[in-house]
Amino acid sequence: MIDLYTFTTPNGRKASIMLEEVDLPYQVHVIDITKGDQFSPDFVAINPNSKIPAIVDPDIPITVFESGAILIYLAEKTGAFMPSDQVGRYQVLEWLMFQMASVGPMFGQLNHFKKYAPEKIPYAIERYEKETLRLYGVLDRQLAQHEYLCGDYTIADIATFPWVAAYEFQGLTLDEHLNLKRWFDAIAQRPAVQKGMNVPEQK
Amino acid sequence: MIDLYTFTTPNGRKASIMLEEVDLPYQVHVIDITKGDQFSPDFVAINPNSKIPAIVDPDIPITVFESGAILIYLAEKTGAFMPSDQVGRYQVLEWLMFQMASVGPMFGQLNHFKKYAPEKIPYAIERYEKETLRLYGVLDRQLAQHEYLCGDYTIADIATFPWVAAYEFQGLTLDEHLNLKRWFDAIAQRPAVQKGMNVPEQK
Repeated sequence: MIDLYTFTTPNGRKASIMLEEVDLPYQVHVIDITKGDQFSPDFVAINPNSKIPAIVDPDIPITVFESGAILIYLAEKTGAFMPSDQVGRYQVLEWLMFQMASVGPMFGQLNHFKKYAPEKIPYAIERYEKETLRLYGVLDRQLAQHEYLCGDYTIADIATFPWVAAYEFQGLTLDEHLNLKRWFDAIAQRPAVQKGMNVPEQK
Repeated sequence: MIDLYTFTTPNGRKASIMLEEVDLPYQVHVIDITKGDQFSPDFVAINPNSKIPAIVDPDIPITVFESGAILIYLAEKTGAFMPSDQVGRYQVLEWLMFQMASVGPMFGQLNHFKKYAPEKIPYAIERYEKETLRLYGVLDRQLAQHEYLCGDYTIADIATFPWVAAYEFQGLTLDEHLNLKRWFDAIAQRPAVQKGMNVPEQK
């Protein structure tokens, strides 16, 4: 059984959504990043960067950290949610990288400056809100031409969904990006997504 | 021949270093992001996110954007700088994702707040300087145990090098991270790296 080290964050939820989608059994280990669990020697041995999620798959055995690498690993292990043709596969990798390099880090900085920073810094809030809305626009234009980011539902969508799901928390709306909203609403209805978004279980 | 759309930035240089390392012929197209070339309709058709680098390989034919996806594409096209065994390959993908999701975005924010922002915001400069130094520490500990990030020289190193190369520009030093410094100095001596770092050519 796969061990999943995770917490209630968008990056953690990418991994739990994927595990639910491919229906692999897994055991959840809560790494409470509000209490510093990610800096424990046991967890640093799994991810030297002290970030969730990480998985250990005893089948190989192998440890994989970074949500983007976990999604590729699970897609290749199961043959699901990643096309097998060359052009389609690289398209998924580029949109997955777009999520990892832009959507995640920039939405994350907006979270920080809008919700968590001890001082409200207008310049920083405006910088990341503007970039988040620009990225909404990029996603929206892609979704005007494709049902999901790369045609069919893939790990690129699974990576992006939990970050877009933070829009209300971030004080934003999807109402001006109707293709993105249509995509978001469709994915939100998937049973595996609903289960995965509730890992670790919130009581 | 591969078409490379690029500019004088760390992300652009990942692609030109890799093309030099694998010795594939390529033609450089300068996308001057200081003049807004990245928003031209011709370039948006290549990368809807308006970021360099991007490549077009007429052999398939295929267009690939996002530096991380370009590195995977070129490694798989040539069989170089990525191990073929399962565990080794995922290790390269996780360190590549670490570069894409943390090193690039966070070093990039430090660049912005320390060098480019119209106002000096101490909180933001401190936030990203602290995170950059933490990431230096993660790299340094990995390089204490391995000659390169994943043992042999791979695309994970090629992705990370151009961002670490900005340390003087960022007002930082590698002198407190001697494993990272040893790794940096070794890679800086590679002829392909020296050629790739000078693309587009700076007159």
